[in-house]
Amino acid sequence: MSKYFSIAFGIGSKNKKSEWLEVCYPAPLFQPDDKLLTAIQLSIELKGGNEVIELNAKQAKNCAKEIAAIDEHQANILTSLIGDKPLVLCALEKDEAPSSTPETYLKLQLLSHRLVKPRSINLNGMFPLLPNVAWTNQGAIDLGELQERQIAARLSGEVLEIKSIDKFPRMTDYVIPSGVRIAHTARIRLGAYLGEGTTVMHEGFVNFNAGCEGPNMIEGRISAGVFVGSGSDLGGGCSTMGTLSGGNEVVISVGKDCLLGANSGLGIPLGDRCTLEAGLYVTGGSKVEVLDEKGTKVDTVKAATLAGKSDLLFIRHSITGAIQCRTNKSAISLNEELHSHN
Amino acid sequence: MSKYFSIAFGIGSKNKKSEWLEVCYPAPLFQPDDKLLTAIQLSIELKGGNEVIELNAKQAKNCAKEIAAIDEHQANILTSLIGDKPLVLCALEKDEAPSSTPETYLKLQLLSHRLVKPRSINLNGMFPLLPNVAWTNQGAIDLGELQERQIAARLSGEVLEIKSIDKFPRMTDYVIPSGVRIAHTARIRLGAYLGEGTTVMHEGFVNFNAGCEGPNMIEGRISAGVFVGSGSDLGGGCSTMGTLSGGNEVVISVGKDCLLGANSGLGIPLGDRCTLEAGLYVTGGSKVEVLDEKGTKVDTVKAATLAGKSDLLFIRHSITGAIQCRTNKSAISLNEELHSHN
Amino acid sequence: MSKYFSIAFGIGSKNKKSEWLEVCYPAPLFQPDDKLLTAIQLSIELKGGNEVIELNAKQAKNCAKEIAAIDEHQANILTSLIGDKPLVLCALEKDEAPSSTPETYLKLQLLSHRLVKPRSINLNGMFPLLPNVAWTNQGAIDLGELQERQIAARLSGEVLEIKSIDKFPRMTDYVIPSGVRIAHTARIRLGAYLGEGTTVMHEGFVNFNAGCEGPNMIEGRISAGVFVGSGSDLGGGCSTMGTLSGGNEVVISVGKDCLLGANSGLGIPLGDRCTLEAGLYVTGGSKVEVLDEKGTKVDTVKAATLAGKSDLLFIRHSITGAIQCRTNKSAISLNEELHSHN
Repeated sequence: MSKYFSIAFGIGSKNKKSEWLEVCYPAPLFQPDDKLLTAIQLSIELKGGNEVIELNAKQAKNCAKEIAAIDEHQANILTSLIGDKPLVLCALEKDEAPSSTPETYLKLQLLSHRLVKPRSINLNGMFPLLPNVAWTNQGAIDLGELQERQIAARLSGEVLEIKSIDKFPRMTDYVIPSGVRIAHTARIRLGAYLGEGTTVMHEGFVNFNAGCEGPNMIEGRISAGVFVGSGSDLGGGCSTMGTLSGGNEVVISVGKDCLLGANSGLGIPLGDRCTLEAGLYVTGGSKVEVLDEKGTKVDTVKAATLAGKSDLLFIRHSITGAIQCRTNKSAISLNEELHSHN
Repeated sequence: MSKYFSIAFGIGSKNKKSEWLEVCYPAPLFQPDDKLLTAIQLSIELKGGNEVIELNAKQAKNCAKEIAAIDEHQANILTSLIGDKPLVLCALEKDEAPSSTPETYLKLQLLSHRLVKPRSINLNGMFPLLPNVAWTNQGAIDLGELQERQIAARLSGEVLEIKSIDKFPRMTDYVIPSGVRIAHTARIRLGAYLGEGTTVMHEGFVNFNAGCEGPNMIEGRISAGVFVGSGSDLGGGCSTMGTLSGGNEVVISVGKDCLLGANSGLGIPLGDRCTLEAGLYVTGGSKVEVLDEKGTKVDTVKAATLAGKSDLLFIRHSITGAIQCRTNKSAISLNEELHSHN
Repeated sequence: MSKYFSIAFGIGSKNKKSEWLEVCYPAPLFQPDDKLLTAIQLSIELKGGNEVIELNAKQAKNCAKEIAAIDEHQANILTSLIGDKPLVLCALEKDEAPSSTPETYLKLQLLSHRLVKPRSINLNGMFPLLPNVAWTNQGAIDLGELQERQIAARLSGEVLEIKSIDKFPRMTDYVIPSGVRIAHTARIRLGAYLGEGTTVMHEGFVNFNAGCEGPNMIEGRISAGVFVGSGSDLGGGCSTMGTLSGGNEVVISVGKDCLLGANSGLGIPLGDRCTLEAGLYVTGGSKVEVLDEKGTKVDTVKAATLAGKSDLLFIRHSITGAIQCRTNKSAISLNEELHSHN
């Protein structure tokens, strides 16, 4: 049992106004050992609550010395961070709504380090705390300081490459989870959760506070808030509706061993072992013909009614044009299930 | 009133044959003040017409001195450009078809600096003027000079990263418009117009001579020539037919406050407040059932007939498979409108 | 006639355990001249079979001297490779299943150098021979050696940019084929075959052992094993089912002068001059109404039946929702063709 939600040592970047642009925590801790907390407090005063404490080199060295016997790895990490960049201890007593940039960055990194699952932590009000930053080959740069640096780079025969201008950096600039393949790192935002055994192909995408359990083959888009169960594959270019992008109140998720076909789209949560035909977009409002194990039409329902059920195959009939849902259940059990909420 | 269409100071790159590869103009002017033109002419002779004048360091210093009182910002920009790279003044008296690489680059940068709107300037015959270039972390490189530099980089433990081999560079290597977020800069070509308040997500794409008014959320593809009105959202992976890619003679555009659903596609111009269902591709030749405010079918028309009209919702009926267009108009007014051109 | 399948000089990277991460062969040879083989053997012993022979600087210099009279280009390449990086001669007597990392890399480069066509060489068992590598701006890095280098880079104000974590690198870090445009190099894997005159736009993608004859406009995804004939265009976001991704046993291919519309999908091989409507996904199991030259429905067949036939237009009827295939053939010849296998 830990007294704290999370603590982490990190180094970050600030703009010329001394405002935080980002913080990188190489080895954040979730529910840290109380002994470590006690050791930290020998050199750093924790007031309780959620704190971001900047450390100078001397403080960091002292702290590393105090904690070395308890947690050698953290001591080594802390020592390796000492240098010219701002160094912080971010200590979160509780999982409250974040109130600063370093705190928000810690929470995103807890997700990508697989220490917490998507949708399990409090990220309320995080957007204004994330500055819009130019992510470049020279690190994070404040947008107001960009043009002069670009001209200077050009004149010296270099390119100041701006990879993105965004509130979120690439995950791999902060966290490299074990056992994954990521064909194109530009498409994974910090805050994504990629379970062991995940392959994200070039057309795959994973937003923050979203991800997959692993193993998974992801060639489609996992929108913010969406989570995909183990063994499920997302085909090339498939879409999942996110809470930020049209999924509204309903949280989209995909169970285990599902297949979303290439260029398909999902607007309802799926249970396990479901298949969505390539090219078919099913939204909650789509009317769907439900067929039993013998292929007989049993009912016509809104797709939302089928949310979360397992062993479904969704197709659009190629002659009638109707969206159909086939199951491996008999007409009787199917009818009961469909109308159990009526 | 200005005597000139545009002038700009820039620095560029040439290959070993002294042919232009590209030119960057940090602060181009559209319809420049006549006083500035007069001041420039104190040190540089403008012959009229469209000119690209290379300046040596002395000429540039003199020119900067002459214009400092009229336009301090331009004087500072010009001074900051003095160095080893070829330095030019590009002066375009009229908006004629471009006749050189530096001139074409200026026009593309006028678009991305939001000084002119897509489809408002003369870009005829521009393609042969844009050399196919390797865009690398060491700047623009002629394709013929690439392999030896790649081997040399490898031997020294570096990578000469080739980001693209294309006639168009990334917009953000030249222009960073204010008030935008661009999740992946590789997907915005120079010549794109991104209005204030635009967010382009990872799956978004904007070609040259195309863009959006802002604010907009762009998660789909804005093809060459397509313009999107303010408040409209393009869902993930949606497609707009461009003049280069199947839209033929019809110019596709999207009005205000529209929504193109994820994985949808648009082959006709839309008015304001229109919605295209996720996953539905509507082309000009698609036959569409038109329903009135009560949901009664009033007519069946080609989608091209509905071009530019407002307040339309396009769906594919999930049971009959028919593409339908619902409006908020009565059958009578709808019929009149549909057949007003018969 | 050559006694060997392929030989090539290359330089590569190893991890700290001296395991190969990758090898780059700037100028591999397919079916090399026997005279060159003889000259090589004056300084290097070839035992026959498939060999990877590491050369020190002295051996490389000697070999370059021996072969200079026979093949000056190879001698120059070999000389240019001498330095600090591991230098190898990879000599493959026969096209057998690869048995090492350098051998697999050679085969992938034969494809991208257009020396062999996709599906024409033996790549069996290659996956375990390709290590999962972090591809960075500092070259290939073993995943286990990554974190310490990232922290070190950050502290020195740099970014160790990880472009991908994958078994395959980008093609353009190894091979730049002539006469191509590649809008975004991250989307072309080593082992792709891009014929002369190919343009791959931002949304295009080409996997290994796959590609196109050229000239082609590729704005969609060419999956592993898929080959596209000359003059065919793949519209934005279109999908081709690959042997790794749902195409199963059937090898998908596209003939000459075809058009796959934007956001369409292909699950059967196409002949020449076929068109797939934008937004339509045709799989082998789709039932399709076949219409003759007059638009009369002649038959309803599984799409797989139409595999490889030419001059077909696939659409989904926008009112009935049925997938239809229109041809320019009469009902009689069409019926004969459709039922010739019955």
